Amino acid sequence: MTRFGYFGPSGTFTEMALLDWPAARGAEHVPFASVDATLAAVRAGEVEAAMVPIENSVEGGVTATLDALASGSPLIVVGERLVKIRFVLAARPGMTLADIATIGTHSHAWAQVRGWMTANLPDATYVPTLSTASAATDLAPGGEGRHDAAVCAPVAAEQAGLQVLAEDIGDIKRAVTRFVLVARPHHIPAPTGADKTTLVLFQRTDMAGGLLRLLEQFATRGINMTRLESRPTKHSMGDYCFSVDIEGHVLDERVGEALTGLKRVCADVVFLGSYARADQARAEVAPYNSDDDFRAADRWLGALRDLVD
Amino acid sequence: MTRFGYFGPSGTFTEMALLDWPAARGAEHVPFASVDATLAAVRAGEVEAAMVPIENSVEGGVTATLDALASGSPLIVVGERLVKIRFVLAARPGMTLADIATIGTHSHAWAQVRGWMTANLPDATYVPTLSTASAATDLAPGGEGRHDAAVCAPVAAEQAGLQVLAEDIGDIKRAVTRFVLVARPHHIPAPTGADKTTLVLFQRTDMAGGLLRLLEQFATRGINMTRLESRPTKHSMGDYCFSVDIEGHVLDERVGEALTGLKRVCADVVFLGSYARADQARAEVAPYNSDDDFRAADRWLGALRDLVD
Amino acid sequence: MTRFGYFGPSGTFTEMALLDWPAARGAEHVPFASVDATLAAVRAGEVEAAMVPIENSVEGGVTATLDALASGSPLIVVGERLVKIRFVLAARPGMTLADIATIGTHSHAWAQVRGWMTANLPDATYVPTLSTASAATDLAPGGEGRHDAAVCAPVAAEQAGLQVLAEDIGDIKRAVTRFVLVARPHHIPAPTGADKTTLVLFQRTDMAGGLLRLLEQFATRGINMTRLESRPTKHSMGDYCFSVDIEGHVLDERVGEALTGLKRVCADVVFLGSYARADQARAEVAPYNSDDDFRAADRWLGALRDLVD
Amino acid sequence: MTRFGYFGPSGTFTEMALLDWPAARGAEHVPFASVDATLAAVRAGEVEAAMVPIENSVEGGVTATLDALASGSPLIVVGERLVKIRFVLAARPGMTLADIATIGTHSHAWAQVRGWMTANLPDATYVPTLSTASAATDLAPGGEGRHDAAVCAPVAAEQAGLQVLAEDIGDIKRAVTRFVLVARPHHIPAPTGADKTTLVLFQRTDMAGGLLRLLEQFATRGINMTRLESRPTKHSMGDYCFSVDIEGHVLDERVGEALTGLKRVCADVVFLGSYARADQARAEVAPYNSDDDFRAADRWLGALRDLVD
Repeated sequence: MTRFGYFGPSGTFTEMALLDWPAARGAEHVPFASVDATLAAVRAGEVEAAMVPIENSVEGGVTATLDALASGSPLIVVGERLVKIRFVLAARPGMTLADIATIGTHSHAWAQVRGWMTANLPDATYVPTLSTASAATDLAPGGEGRHDAAVCAPVAAEQAGLQVLAEDIGDIKRAVTRFVLVARPHHIPAPTGADKTTLVLFQRTDMAGGLLRLLEQFATRGINMTRLESRPTKHSMGDYCFSVDIEGHVLDERVGEALTGLKRVCADVVFLGSYARADQARAEVAPYNSDDDFRAADRWLGALRDLVD
Repeated sequence: MTRFGYFGPSGTFTEMALLDWPAARGAEHVPFASVDATLAAVRAGEVEAAMVPIENSVEGGVTATLDALASGSPLIVVGERLVKIRFVLAARPGMTLADIATIGTHSHAWAQVRGWMTANLPDATYVPTLSTASAATDLAPGGEGRHDAAVCAPVAAEQAGLQVLAEDIGDIKRAVTRFVLVARPHHIPAPTGADKTTLVLFQRTDMAGGLLRLLEQFATRGINMTRLESRPTKHSMGDYCFSVDIEGHVLDERVGEALTGLKRVCADVVFLGSYARADQARAEVAPYNSDDDFRAADRWLGALRDLVD
Repeated sequence: MTRFGYFGPSGTFTEMALLDWPAARGAEHVPFASVDATLAAVRAGEVEAAMVPIENSVEGGVTATLDALASGSPLIVVGERLVKIRFVLAARPGMTLADIATIGTHSHAWAQVRGWMTANLPDATYVPTLSTASAATDLAPGGEGRHDAAVCAPVAAEQAGLQVLAEDIGDIKRAVTRFVLVARPHHIPAPTGADKTTLVLFQRTDMAGGLLRLLEQFATRGINMTRLESRPTKHSMGDYCFSVDIEGHVLDERVGEALTGLKRVCADVVFLGSYARADQARAEVAPYNSDDDFRAADRWLGALRDLVD
Repeated sequence: MTRFGYFGPSGTFTEMALLDWPAARGAEHVPFASVDATLAAVRAGEVEAAMVPIENSVEGGVTATLDALASGSPLIVVGERLVKIRFVLAARPGMTLADIATIGTHSHAWAQVRGWMTANLPDATYVPTLSTASAATDLAPGGEGRHDAAVCAPVAAEQAGLQVLAEDIGDIKRAVTRFVLVARPHHIPAPTGADKTTLVLFQRTDMAGGLLRLLEQFATRGINMTRLESRPTKHSMGDYCFSVDIEGHVLDERVGEALTGLKRVCADVVFLGSYARADQARAEVAPYNSDDDFRAADRWLGALRDLVD
């Protein structure tokens, strides 16, 4: 039976993203305790592919995922899912808001409900937990949680048999987390016309001119960038690489030429996949940068070169 | 008595950074439970200034600090400190490595010792704590820690009366964290010749050409960028601002002109301070971009303009 | 009596441009035999100002003018005129097309009627003359012209008492020549809102990156360039300067800042004037580059700088 | 017998350039009366190839040549020659400097000896001639020249039996003219490692951003530009094309990619040849832009694309 991994435990938004992946229906879903462990299982072949969070509209890039993808044996992204984030405050049945002195949740979730807490439970103490789901399961019968309430996804509260004290308590109402399905680099999905490509770019030299030169490789081919994260390369302060998403597929001519340009001017380029966009928004190709434009120019060059003695 | 705040508790690397700040000697040092609370105390005038982490050579930018500085009533950075990060594994006296099943620490610290743990304590379970220091104090007499050992700074282990089981267990031996001293924007330190300026840039439009246009404002004046972090603006996925450090001081002509250029082309520019670099490295001014070059050009323009009827 | 010079003789398009200059009405108009002599008279103070051709829509820049302006004691352009070029073929009364074996005119004019000649007088021989007007006056009674017909302006044919054999014989029907009124740099005309500025830029180094860097000074301030001529600096092959016209006036903030930027990065910048456009087309200021935008940014910077200790 | 054309008459620097072309030795050398006529003969197949001037280190681009190459049926440059320009003042035997009242020469030559004339023969009158050589031959026995002396090449003075009154009278002592050998586009010479490529670029839109975008196509591939001429496209004032020389051969990978990039973003690209440089200076390939760099990047991209389903 095919196995798909995810950064667990069950009841997290990550599991919800995996449940939304058609090819994973009917397959076994295996939770892992950390992003590192999840990706290690993919690398080891224990699972076919795995779902991990990569970017949150409030908190930004998920550094554990960005770093784990950028190093180690090659992995590629084969798909993505966007999940609307909705937090609830949940407690054991019988508790009321007035009873809540301590609140457990993952630190990323805590960051997203600080406004609500200041307004409604200003004296509550924060207790860090491994995940939003574990904050809930620790409160389930037999759980060893010592906090009074959990901030978690509705499904986690339900699975743990908790009572919801407050709904939709996130400070940003339209918060969305983006998850990616990661696999070993055996196959790249064929282009759909609404694709994204993910790369990690390691600069050769200093930052200022360097990043400008990298971005020019996209700009001169009319390629739109949809995400840019700088990440330290862990050697010394100020030594960065860049994790980027661009519109388009590795088979698109403009993307291919930009990739070879980057390959030349970068110390290294890690290709992390071309895959269908979750929002199915088709790329608007900038004028003079369509595949037809590239091929017509190539034919013209080929005819010239045929004349060389 | 002057009061300086810091992201506590006592025994963290942040306190070490504050202890290294001459003007804070003899002053009262007040710990706060979160970066948000620390900066709120500065904004409220409860403390003169406060030390918070902003960037780690392994984990990258400290998002809580970056976000808290970018929004809310204005604050500025008036100084910075670099602290070499050295983690120890500490436990109650009498414990040995073989006794350690659960390990408490802050999630950022855990990320930096994963390699050592995999090699030495592969079966240990991670217990998240509010800080590295609280992981230690929870194990002190009277503490309610339920973990067997803490990953923390040497000083925190010592203060809590713990026994060090392993020294310097960070996976990256040269890890450094950069801390900034933040104050209300009443005074900007005078230039020293070895200064940095910190900004948050909000783009007007889409990313690709947009970021390129922002970076050009630095490049055309020969200004070197030493840090770039993209941060979501919390409105929607893909809507970013940029937190950047550049070499130079707001009084430098090239920096001033770049700032006005950015002010024009950005939706907003948040000025977060000009201050002496911790490493005291003097900026190498690119040719034709010195203050003298700018002033000579201004005099030439002024003489031309005097001729206009 | 005020004296205005022009590149003569009388009967040329240059005189027509001067006749179209209001301030020159009622003044004495003094022809000179070459562009060099015309500008020398301005430099010597013999004339108040002088009209010379600078650019032709068919032949391009007038190199004698471009070079004479770029070197020597400073001169500035204080105005411009566009004159529609219309050539006639004219001969002594009694001649017919069939009688024409040799044709005199200036080499620039000859270049513009080659098509007509090939079609109508394919066997005619070209005789170079000092100007189109002198080609006509040489055929006037007492003239020593040995050619059979002249290519010249209608007014020159009329003044010389010649008979027009063919009208409007230029190959390009919409040919226009641009003339500039040049004066000593005592006064620059006040801005009209529809102005141009003329510059000569001497690069410091090699061409590729160099020119790109110069053009960026305009592009980053949204300044439109309306003419670019590369001219050898006469030292060695491949050593160029650039003669450019841009939209806007030296008093415009965006133009002023671009000028100081160029002054810094160029080996030299020769300012050749800000003056009203002949076509009175108002500059479209690119967004965020208006004087108000610049001044608002300057006030913001000033307020920041006031905080420096 | 193979026939080579040149812009005559005999005795010009252009003939000297042709005499320096090995493949033309033993062939018939055919002079033509104008650059247009010379190139028309190449187009018509009357001559194998022809030598014409393209650029002078004092006067700049030769507009007749630039324009004739940019339009009409395709021609390509297959080689170039640099000729040091040395002018003499020559007259009929028996004449002395004191006898010289009128001086004949081509207007381009006159521009290059103005300084000497002002110093030595300030009262002499200029008489335009079709070429420097014809200024000399008009003074030969039987010639109908009415001027007293000619400014011409030493060889022309000698051929016409004239006496040299002054040697090397050019104002710029190191003046050089560059000549190109033009042929129908049947064969492009193979690369030598020290090659140049000549292009005419027609912009799609307005000038400012437009030219910048064209130059970026060279800059992002580390290609050095050795000549840039803007030329009116003859439609309306301000509508320009660009005639450029770059280092490298159409077979070089970096040149090929820049050409296809230009082909896409330009309204038109006219390829005018790749040929050995006269000075045999080998191109310094910018780092990461060698053929090996391009091919390694292409192989990397090919391997990625092979993975696409």
